[in-house]
Amino acid sequence: MNPSPPVVETIAECRRLIAGARAEGKSIGFVPTMGALHDGHVRLMEECRSRCGFLVASIFVNPTQFGPTEDYAKYPRTPEEDHSRCSSAGVDLIFEPTVAEMYPRGPVATFVEVPGLSSVLEGRSRPTHFRGVTTVVAKLFHIVQPDRAAFGLKDYQQLAVIRRMVDDLDFPVELLPVETVREPDGLAMSSRNRYLSAEQRRAATVLSRALNRAAEAVAAGERSADRVRQDLARTIESEALARLDYAEVADAQSLEPLAELSPGRGAVALVAARIGPARLIDNRLLPT
Amino acid sequence: MNPSPPVVETIAECRRLIAGARAEGKSIGFVPTMGALHDGHVRLMEECRSRCGFLVASIFVNPTQFGPTEDYAKYPRTPEEDHSRCSSAGVDLIFEPTVAEMYPRGPVATFVEVPGLSSVLEGRSRPTHFRGVTTVVAKLFHIVQPDRAAFGLKDYQQLAVIRRMVDDLDFPVELLPVETVREPDGLAMSSRNRYLSAEQRRAATVLSRALNRAAEAVAAGERSADRVRQDLARTIESEALARLDYAEVADAQSLEPLAELSPGRGAVALVAARIGPARLIDNRLLPT
Repeated sequence: MNPSPPVVETIAECRRLIAGARAEGKSIGFVPTMGALHDGHVRLMEECRSRCGFLVASIFVNPTQFGPTEDYAKYPRTPEEDHSRCSSAGVDLIFEPTVAEMYPRGPVATFVEVPGLSSVLEGRSRPTHFRGVTTVVAKLFHIVQPDRAAFGLKDYQQLAVIRRMVDDLDFPVELLPVETVREPDGLAMSSRNRYLSAEQRRAATVLSRALNRAAEAVAAGERSADRVRQDLARTIESEALARLDYAEVADAQSLEPLAELSPGRGAVALVAARIGPARLIDNRLLPT
Repeated sequence: MNPSPPVVETIAECRRLIAGARAEGKSIGFVPTMGALHDGHVRLMEECRSRCGFLVASIFVNPTQFGPTEDYAKYPRTPEEDHSRCSSAGVDLIFEPTVAEMYPRGPVATFVEVPGLSSVLEGRSRPTHFRGVTTVVAKLFHIVQPDRAAFGLKDYQQLAVIRRMVDDLDFPVELLPVETVREPDGLAMSSRNRYLSAEQRRAATVLSRALNRAAEAVAAGERSADRVRQDLARTIESEALARLDYAEVADAQSLEPLAELSPGRGAVALVAARIGPARLIDNRLLPT
């Protein structure tokens, strides 16, 4: 069992402890989170820990990535459990700033934006979401200055947006994409799964079931992206408790919608649906 | 006389040499330039050199900060003279990338923006200018990872925009503002002064003369920002070869226009005018 890692609230103290680790020659790993940690986060931490000498996790429910009608206020906050999970996952330092520490001048006047990739899929329903994500991730990267940072493939578009930001702005950070962790019945782990009643929880498996069907169809030779999209949508709409937001088949890098699936061009199926109080997303790379 | 500093074109080689200096325990100073170096740039380098163990200067005429009708193509390029000036100013490494090295995927998909501060004054005439500046400075900061970076007060608004970006995004960089260097007759040094004929060159002194009059009026008790603005505009318009763009009296931090000058609130006068083929700017802090 690891000793409990220090939990620091200020940027200055966070930087001071990280500088100490770097002075010892350790490489710095980083897992940014909004807390409400589950096994998916733990996987991120373990993967990152195995590649770095010193692992920093941040816990910050970032207000600027929530829209005005979204769940910022009621987003689950479970600090004690989070600290304990960080500890057993090998985290060396927990950075858990207040909103005032991160945004001392109130609303930021500076934005980091990837307009194209941020406007499709999630961006249609959540127009300012990724701008909030890229801006806070830029801030966190400048505070932590990690050598490597881990992000989950569950938030596929988020990873694509951040990868583009890192490449375009020459951030000296290596991104570590980590596989989605799923419940035994296929549901992708998400902090928002806590919003679901037992009945909604059962219904929520429709997302991964739809994606599995899509992958099977493509593996069996389906080449029409439109037919795959239609089947995704039909499957999700067949679940009475689910309200489909989107079902897309897109280029795995650019996220541009595909007309057909072709060998050698990576493709990903992405879905979003509202189930009761939760808006859930999931995705799966297709075997082109 | 210093030995000639290495001139490197690639990000990888630039990072490698800087990592070597850092491993020797040297702090890194940085002066980003577009070349066409004059004594103002040399002052930036000398100030920065005196505070850092290793000085990096970049020479890059950044296309994304020029508007479509601006002078990107004919912006003066004087590489040999620049290298020699860098050498005598104590630069240890010149980073002189190509456009393809800085923008390998063509137009960037990621922007760093400070929309408020970027839309006034210069931003009115040059709506995409500061977005180009902040984005390329963010890239250069990520490549060089300087401890300190020097910027001239001649480009007052640029410094205000970059300071806001650095603060809002928590860049681990200390900004070093450096006084404007002037010709004996008061003209602020600028690479664009080379565009001027002898007659235009004489006319161009009207900017600093107007600013000096403003500072004298305020020192003598003038408290109406409007009267100062009017006098600035009248003085510049009295020069037949000058076409006024703006004459503003603004809060020294926020750049918001002021109604009156009051003790304890920093104020700055800023002017821009076109003189022949050159668009020139200048500014002066007012003795409130």
